[in-house]
This record gives sequence, structure tokens and C-alpha cells, in this order.
Amino acid sequence: MVLMRIAVLLGILTFALQAQKAPAEAARQWRMQHEQQILSEFTSLLAIPNIASDRVNQQRNAEALLKMLEARHVQGQLLSIPDAPAVVFGEIKTPNAKRTIVFYAHYDGQPVTPADWEGGEPFKPVFRTVNGEQRIYGRSASDDKAAIMAQMAALDALQAARIPLKANIKFIWEGEEEAGSRHLEAILKAHQDLIRGDVYLICDGPVDQSRLQSIAFGARGDTHLEITVYGPHHELHSGHYGNWAPNPALMLAQLLGGMKDGDGNILIPHFYDGVTALSETEKRALEEAPVNDDRLREELWLGHVDGGGRHLLELLNVPTLNINGISAGRTGARANNVIPATAMADLDLRLVVGVDWRTQQQRVIDYIRAEGYTVVETEPDKETLLKYAKVAFVKRDAGYNAVRTSMDLPISEDVIHAVESAHRPVVKLPTMGGSVPLEGIERAAGTHTITIPIANHDNNQHSANENIRVQNLWDGIETMAALMGMK
Amino acid sequence: MVLMRIAVLLGILTFALQAQKAPAEAARQWRMQHEQQILSEFTSLLAIPNIASDRVNQQRNAEALLKMLEARHVQGQLLSIPDAPAVVFGEIKTPNAKRTIVFYAHYDGQPVTPADWEGGEPFKPVFRTVNGEQRIYGRSASDDKAAIMAQMAALDALQAARIPLKANIKFIWEGEEEAGSRHLEAILKAHQDLIRGDVYLICDGPVDQSRLQSIAFGARGDTHLEITVYGPHHELHSGHYGNWAPNPALMLAQLLGGMKDGDGNILIPHFYDGVTALSETEKRALEEAPVNDDRLREELWLGHVDGGGRHLLELLNVPTLNINGISAGRTGARANNVIPATAMADLDLRLVVGVDWRTQQQRVIDYIRAEGYTVVETEPDKETLLKYAKVAFVKRDAGYNAVRTSMDLPISEDVIHAVESAHRPVVKLPTMGGSVPLEGIERAAGTHTITIPIANHDNNQHSANENIRVQNLWDGIETMAALMGMK
Repeated sequence: MVLMRIAVLLGILTFALQAQKAPAEAARQWRMQHEQQILSEFTSLLAIPNIASDRVNQQRNAEALLKMLEARHVQGQLLSIPDAPAVVFGEIKTPNAKRTIVFYAHYDGQPVTPADWEGGEPFKPVFRTVNGEQRIYGRSASDDKAAIMAQMAALDALQAARIPLKANIKFIWEGEEEAGSRHLEAILKAHQDLIRGDVYLICDGPVDQSRLQSIAFGARGDTHLEITVYGPHHELHSGHYGNWAPNPALMLAQLLGGMKDGDGNILIPHFYDGVTALSETEKRALEEAPVNDDRLREELWLGHVDGGGRHLLELLNVPTLNINGISAGRTGARANNVIPATAMADLDLRLVVGVDWRTQQQRVIDYIRAEGYTVVETEPDKETLLKYAKVAFVKRDAGYNAVRTSMDLPISEDVIHAVESAHRPVVKLPTMGGSVPLEGIERAAGTHTITIPIANHDNNQHSANENIRVQNLWDGIETMAALMGMK
Repeated sequence: MVLMRIAVLLGILTFALQAQKAPAEAARQWRMQHEQQILSEFTSLLAIPNIASDRVNQQRNAEALLKMLEARHVQGQLLSIPDAPAVVFGEIKTPNAKRTIVFYAHYDGQPVTPADWEGGEPFKPVFRTVNGEQRIYGRSASDDKAAIMAQMAALDALQAARIPLKANIKFIWEGEEEAGSRHLEAILKAHQDLIRGDVYLICDGPVDQSRLQSIAFGARGDTHLEITVYGPHHELHSGHYGNWAPNPALMLAQLLGGMKDGDGNILIPHFYDGVTALSETEKRALEEAPVNDDRLREELWLGHVDGGGRHLLELLNVPTLNINGISAGRTGARANNVIPATAMADLDLRLVVGVDWRTQQQRVIDYIRAEGYTVVETEPDKETLLKYAKVAFVKRDAGYNAVRTSMDLPISEDVIHAVESAHRPVVKLPTMGGSVPLEGIERAAGTHTITIPIANHDNNQHSANENIRVQNLWDGIETMAALMGMK
């Protein structure tokens, strides 16, 4: 009797687990039978250049994506406003659905410097085996066309397995995320009737460095400053004028060098003011997350790290100031003996909840002023340069703020359960390190965002030789299928 | 009686002045009748690319220079050792000469970045009129093929006017001055019987910013250091790793920024130790020299200058540390959100008499060590980078020391008189700002060097759009003729 009861219970449990696992499992089976077909469709998509400013190719991307939707019998259209790449929109209406789940991804990629790429052609995807694992190299292989491919393959699998959807599904694929999503909010607002949803699943970014599937309930905001400081009007011979004409590379070094201490703590006054504290659930999630710091340090050949002993995942909840690039004169074989005319730095400021991007820009500018610079917002003329001892031309880029969705909401808990039906354990982060324009999305759609990354962490995102580990694409298809199967 | 005596004296004086002025005056007259011919020969020479490392084109230059000597019936030959561009050597033996005067110049130029040049072709010389004055633009238009052309045109003029030479004349034209004259001393030593002279006239560099003809009795020495500091093994996404992975651009900024104070004074311990003081004659010459600082500040759009109130010409007698270039990641339109893997700076160290270049390199390296860096002299491997918190890879370039010839020597006084016979007043400098390998020449030839520049100061030497003001070429021909006419 007892044994029978246990058998019945086990049977029910097994059935329940099977039922719950069905979308991810179906995705795995379908993928294993269609790997070449998936990879072929994916590499065709990667072969279309996708820099946000390249309007001709972005239109080609958008049309290719529409065809991918049509091939799945999904009603698609381009959402446009002038002077911006179109948002590709797709919609599956499910009878009696109680929820609408929106899958966001972006089809543009970071600018490329082909000479830095192995093979020199970022838009000719190449398969390479690294440490016995197959990877695909090409711009946006991971960031973020992989997410689009995973969504489409997941849909193929569900359709093939005749697993009915329970929720309405929408796809929103943006074409200028890497250029700051300058028009996304306006495009969404211009199509409010179409783009509503109960949750936006932001399918972008890498999973945890442990390779465990991750869910991020927020993302850092982002903005930029470009700083140019001035030496002589044109490059000078370093012998004839050395000791007399100020060197702008040195001036910029002094200006930037003072912005941080030796541990990477930012010394700009008020830089950390206003940061919203983490909730108890968020703190617990961080404590449960794997600590990969030592392994990463080894992987990245780092003899020391910043942060004064705090872990990487903890530091993602703190604002950053990063030098993306610095340049003056020339180095290496092209170096020559000059006092450069200008020196330039590109700064990236990542924001966390509680700190507005305009405030953060202003704090940096105030610091530059406090260092004795006259700050101008257009290129300075002769009169200005002669008048002031030190002039900095600061270009403020647009930006967006960080957001964080509570892990305690019902939709948050449902998303966690769905993802766990595909992979366990799941790393739950209050904030992911990367930035996605969640603020504008939340404002335009009046809803929450939750980020579901699928790429490998070591994907060279934003750099040369960007790649996706093929197994991450396969795992991502299962994750997407599980999320599409949600109620 | 008194009047008659005055008349006789005036007659003698006039005759003496005419006799003394003859070579420069002859040069002027010949030049005015042959301007097109001179410019045509000059631009043909500029059209041959002349980067020191370009062995094929450097051989073309050397052969073209031999032909220029032959056209003046000067016996020429190439002085070679393996793996170096040849020195072009020419000699005119004068019966009963008591002195041998050697005219040094160099036929190589600094590396070029064609995209930075107006027109994009540094080796297609172009005439342009700037503020009503004709200039020729092209690599080495001023530095230093102009000096070679001036010497040849001066010789043409003297030969045409049948002015007999009084001294033996030699020409020594080097092919790798801009690459540090690494083989010059060895080449001279290998041909000791040929290259002897009572003085080497170093025809290189720009005249004073007042445009007055200058004589420099010394030149700063020069050496380089290339510094690379390390962040993560490869570029990282600035969001996912910002606050944790150290940014090498920031590290380098901190390292370089601490090397100077806000007035350009170098803070590296002992950097100024050992400098030989100026003599009374040298100090007087500096006091007599024009002060161009305010005009230059205006010309160069400089709101402040370094040096704590000391004049430019005074500061040329002080060692320098200059950042030729700095680079990490990318800036401008190519910037993207990364933590760069490395940051690199190219440092130029100018030396004055009393400070050895090896000592000066070591002082910089000691400073880098004192800032907490482990300094390596080959590219660091994974083990090294993991072992030490901060690693700097410092490449030491070769160098040479400063030299200074006393203004009180008879040969110095004769050179001053000869140059004054062509142009008055003359600016006499203990040290020119630029560097020429005088130390190696003095050692190899066992003689003194005196530098006679002819180029305009605003010639964009070492940079894009290098040029010579045509009037400077004309004036230089007269100066060279006066020097060739010396006893």
C-alpha cells in the first residue's frame, strides 16, 4: 500500500516534471536534428554588416529578419521613425492568453576595425574550435544576433512538437542598441498599441562566467563623455619646443590619472552619491551566486584586480568610470618625436539605480573644472585657447539610466521557474554589468524588464574576434523555448 | 688730408667687405637667375620616398645624390656597411688648403602617415602660398633635403662665378638620422681616411623663430623609451568587468601624470642631476638672442606654457621628457565600450651636456619601479602578469648624448664671421632644441661640430605637411656659399 502510494506519487511527479520540461526538451530534440539548418540560417544573418549608422545594410538586416518571421508564420512589420534603423516587430496572438511576453533583442553590432580581426573580415562568420569547443566568430555572433536566432529556433521546435503557446508572444528587435538606443523609446511610443506586454524579456548579454544560465533583474545605465585637451595648434618637433610647449598627452594623463585611486575607487566628488541599496532578496541572490573571481583572474592574466577585495558580481552594483580609449600622437612603429596638438579620451560611465546619467556627466565635468580647466562644449577657437591656461572640450553623449525589477514580483518568480525548467541552477543577479536601454522600454511600454542572456562570457563582446560558443546557442534555444511556453 | 685718409680707409673697407661678401652675393645672383632649375632638381629629390627602413628607396636616394655630386664634378662615393643605408660622400680637394670643412646633412625623413597630409601624398611635393609666401610641402622638404639642395646650389653659384675655394670641402649625407643614426659612427670609423675634417658643419634644423639666421654650437642628445602596461589579456566589455578588471589606460595615465608637475618640471628623482653649466660667452649669446616667446604663444594658440617663466631658448639647455604618443583602445568614431588590454606610450628624452642617455633612461625606469611596477624588457608572459600586480614592459631605444662646441674656439669665430657675411644679425645658441648625432660624429672624426640650420621654424618638422618656405631655401644657399668660401 505504502509502496503503491509512492509509485503513484512518483508517477505523478514524473508526469509533472515531463510536462514542465516539455518546451526545453522539445527544443533540444529538434535542435539535435537540425543543427546544420540552424547554423546556416544564423551565419547568413551574421554576414549582413550591421553597424547602426550603416542605413543601407541595416535595412537589409531588417528585411532578412522579417523573412525569418514570415518563415515561422509570424506576422511581422517594421516600426520606423525618420533617421533611425527600423525596429523589427513580430506578434503571435494566442487565444485566451492572459499574458503577453515580449522578446527583445538587437540586430546591430559595435563598430569594427577589420585589421584587428583574425582573418580581417568581421562579417564573414568563421567556425573555429577553441579548447575542443566549436565557436562561431563574427560581429554580433553573440551580441546580439544569437538571441534572435535562439528565439526563432525555439519557435521552430515548439511548432514542430505541436506544443501550444499559452501566452501572446511578441518580438521586438532593435537596430541601434550599440549606438545608444537613441530612437527606441520614440519608436515604441509611436506604436503603443502594438508594443504592450506584461514583461519584456531582454535577450542580450553573456551568462555568468561559471557558464550557468543567468537571469538579470536589472542592467546598468550608460553614458559617455569624450574629452579633448589642447597643446600647440599643430604638432611640434619635440626637440625645438620640449620643456616649453605644454604636452596635451601629459595634461590628459594628469587629468584622468587623478580620477581614481590605485584600487579603482573613483575620486570624483559625489560620484557614488544616491545609489539605491539592494533589497534582502537581492543580497541573498548575490550570496548564492558562484564566485568566479579567481578563475577569471587566471583566465585574464590579471595580477591584481580593482575593488579593494569586493567580488565582481558585487561591483556590478556600483557606478563605473572607464577609459574606453585614449590617443595622442602615435605609438609603436609610427611614433615620432612630436609634441601632439591634442589628446583625446573616450569615457564610459555605467550607472546603477539611483544615479541619473546627466548628474553623473555633470560630476565628471565639475571635476574637470576643479582641476583648472575651462570646459567648452564646442571645438574651441584661437581666442578661447589663448585666453585660458587649460581648455577641455567635452562632448556629452546621450545616455540612459539603470533599472532593476524586483525579484519578488509574481512575473519575476514565473520567469525564474521557466528558466529553471530548462537549466539548473540559475544565477540570479540584481544588476547585469552591461547596459541595455531598459529605462526607455519601461517608460514606453509601462512594464517590467527582465534580462535573459545566453552568450558565453568570453565572447569578445564589443571587440575584435567576437564569437559565440555553439553550445551556448544550443542552450539558449532551450531557454527561449521554456520562456515561450510560459503561461 | 684727414678727408683723404677717410676716403682711402672707406675704399679699403668697401673692397674688403665686397671681397668678404662675394660668395653669398654670387649665390644670390646665381639663384635669382636659376630658381626654376633649383626647384625642379629639389622637387625631384623630394619625390623619392626616404624612410630610413625603406632600403630600396634609400638606395634610389643615394644614387640620385651621387648624380647630383657628379653634375658638379665632385668625386662621390657611397660609404656602406651591412644593414644600413649608405652614407653619400663627396670631396673637393683644394690645392694648398689649410682646412677641411665637412658639410653634413641627412637624406632620410621621419615616418609618414599619408592620411594626415593635405593631399595625402607626402612624396609628391606641392607648392602652396601661405600668407603671401611660397612654400614647398613634402616629407624632408625642410628636414633635411633642403640643406643638401642649398649646398649643391651654393656650389653651382661659386663655380659659375669662378670664385675659387680656399679650403678642402667634403659632403657627408646620412640615410638614417631620423632612425637614430644607429650606424653613422661605425660607417665613419670604417672610412677614417676619407672623413677627416677640421670642422663638421651640421646643416640641419630650423633657424630661430625670429627668422634670423642661427648658428647652434651644440645640440641636445636623444633617446626613447616605449612603455606598455597591462590590463586584461584581451579587451573586455566595460560593463561586465568595469570596477573589477584594471584599466591599463588609467594605470598609464597615473604613471605618466606623476612624471611632471603643472609647470612641466620633471619630478623623476635626479632627472636634472649632472647638467653642465653654460659658460659666460654662452650666457651672453643667449641674452643677445631675440625673445620670441609671446609671438610664438600667439602663433601656436597657447594659453599657457611650461617652464615657470623661463624663456624657450633657455629651456633648450635643460633635459626634457616628452610623450610623443599614447594609445589604448580607440577614440572618436571608432571608440567602443571596452577595457583595453594594454596601453602604450612613446617617450622622447632629450639630453643636454653632462647627462648620459643611459643614465637618463635608467632614472625613468627607476621611477616606474618606485611606482610599484615590475619592469620587464621583453613582452611579459602569463606567469609574469599573474605574479605581479603591475607590470611595465619598457623597450629602451638606443640614443646619443648632447655635445656643445665652445664659441671661443678660432674655428667657431671663423664660422660666425662667414655666416655674418651672408646675413646679419646672427642668433648664436649654445644648444639647439633638436638632436643630431653629433656625439658619434665627434668621436669618429675627432673633430668639432657646429650646426647651421636653414629651415623656417614653422616647417611642421617630423609631422604631416612638412614644408620649407622657399625664401629660407634661397637664404640657405647664400649661407652655404659663404661657408664654402671660408679659408
